[in-house]
Amino acid sequence: MGEFDLIRRFFQRLPAADAGVEVGVGDDCAVLRPTPGARWLVSSDMLVEGRHFLSTVDPARLGHKALAVNLSDLAACGATPRGFTLALALPRVDEAWLAGFARGLWALSEASGCPLIGGDTTQGPLNLCITVLGEAPAGQALLRGGARAGDEIWVSGRLGDARLALEVFRGTVALEGNGFEAVRRAMECPTPRLALGQALRGIATAAIDLSDGLLGDLGHILAASGVGACLDVDALPRSAVLAAQPAALQRQCLLAGGDDYELLFTAPAGARLPDVGVALTRIGRIEARPGLRVVDAAGAAVEHGLRGYDHFAS
Amino acid sequence: MGEFDLIRRFFQRLPAADAGVEVGVGDDCAVLRPTPGARWLVSSDMLVEGRHFLSTVDPARLGHKALAVNLSDLAACGATPRGFTLALALPRVDEAWLAGFARGLWALSEASGCPLIGGDTTQGPLNLCITVLGEAPAGQALLRGGARAGDEIWVSGRLGDARLALEVFRGTVALEGNGFEAVRRAMECPTPRLALGQALRGIATAAIDLSDGLLGDLGHILAASGVGACLDVDALPRSAVLAAQPAALQRQCLLAGGDDYELLFTAPAGARLPDVGVALTRIGRIEARPGLRVVDAAGAAVEHGLRGYDHFAS
Repeated sequence: MGEFDLIRRFFQRLPAADAGVEVGVGDDCAVLRPTPGARWLVSSDMLVEGRHFLSTVDPARLGHKALAVNLSDLAACGATPRGFTLALALPRVDEAWLAGFARGLWALSEASGCPLIGGDTTQGPLNLCITVLGEAPAGQALLRGGARAGDEIWVSGRLGDARLALEVFRGTVALEGNGFEAVRRAMECPTPRLALGQALRGIATAAIDLSDGLLGDLGHILAASGVGACLDVDALPRSAVLAAQPAALQRQCLLAGGDDYELLFTAPAGARLPDVGVALTRIGRIEARPGLRVVDAAGAAVEHGLRGYDHFAS
Repeated sequence: MGEFDLIRRFFQRLPAADAGVEVGVGDDCAVLRPTPGARWLVSSDMLVEGRHFLSTVDPARLGHKALAVNLSDLAACGATPRGFTLALALPRVDEAWLAGFARGLWALSEASGCPLIGGDTTQGPLNLCITVLGEAPAGQALLRGGARAGDEIWVSGRLGDARLALEVFRGTVALEGNGFEAVRRAMECPTPRLALGQALRGIATAAIDLSDGLLGDLGHILAASGVGACLDVDALPRSAVLAAQPAALQRQCLLAGGDDYELLFTAPAGARLPDVGVALTRIGRIEARPGLRVVDAAGAAVEHGLRGYDHFAS
């Protein structure tokens, strides 16, 4: 199968008539019709084998995750998805792998109303690069820099399961049966919080998606906003599987886990938060004093020695 | 140097105030202000070491080329660039390499008014993925499907030098001195024909940029337009260096060379073509009869046995 057959077979479907895609896959550029008055939001994420996913992952889950982590960036900004491009380097044409990958990718594409509009295919070490395009009304994109002293810090869903699953694959933790399947699912099939992000427009003062671990990502909000924070580690939402682990491991997974793809946001105290069917947990407070202080439920300082993920930190 | 220092040092500059970039590098998404009434055009290209570039290439030229091949897709659609994202997988942090790469990238970014607005950095086998965003007035994007019988076929610049340089690197051709430097420059520093593409709005009936070789790319126009063509191989514009090579090698480089990044377009016979300082050469004619016929200056059929580039063709 050649390059162009491969594209036609796995990566070319007509977008919905109301998607505003005037030209999709198959020309030099895709052509999109913008919503009058909206702003365009753009984000790119690259996934590399052995670093962002294991070579043994179910290709359908990989197709889902490659798009999910990109949609999560749109969600963090409160954007409505409009389309994405996929650039794919493949060592060889493996039709069964491609069929699975495409199945997972298209399922999330259709569920999120985000059509595949273009991309590139080449031979090389396995690498997936997706760029997502979305829209938000002018002045309403959620950014990192708006947190103010007195704001409350909130997080969606539960944290740490993806990291716990990674530790099982690394062999440092033993988990079996349903518990392992549940955390593995968190790692391989994250849900981008698109509805929540859009519902937080005009309510959240700052937002980010959790990809590099809570400490690192909250640090980005604090740096961009020029504020500090106090974080209650005991308040962090966690699964029963994670809650059954030793305390030190729990904290590592919760504070520096990475790959959560939940939304972390700040809102004025007492703000009316949206109910979109996703649990929201208050986990701390923004303070004028710079720095991030981690405390337990009793208010005592917690020494953790952890930090966010950095691809090139030694 | 960590990931975030790397981004700040090499890949973060404030876009021009009039670029319409409300949020650039450093948040979950970039935010762009569209031109009222325009359409959005999007294209992604991925470059892999050993396939799209040699490991020994000057990193500044690689930075230029990575952006140039993407801008060439915008040019082919007649779009005005608005910004690009860069996703970069690096085996390690090599500051001298990054400084050179960033220098070439920024020079073309600034020359073409296309600011870097976001991206991703990770560790992995060297891979560059750029997504470009541009605009064109509604209904005016140049596409592949509009060629009509009787249209003339035109090409910008000169063809085949990039392929000739590749053959020198492969050791199948010997070239030295200024001749080698000239064709090597064509391979490593292509010029995206942005002004030409924009000037062809409303004039060209179909357009594509030449990346996979003339036969393959013209074939895309013919397939999308449902027409055939007659192509005069002797009319194809070529450099003095290429013209000094054996006839069979010239034809290989001209017809199936790849990496030209010139514009191939069709226009009604007698159309007034724009003068933007780029040579334009008439190389053939669109015909109703399907198929692509290659002839010489005397009109005799040329047997060539060549085809366009396919990353997965065996």
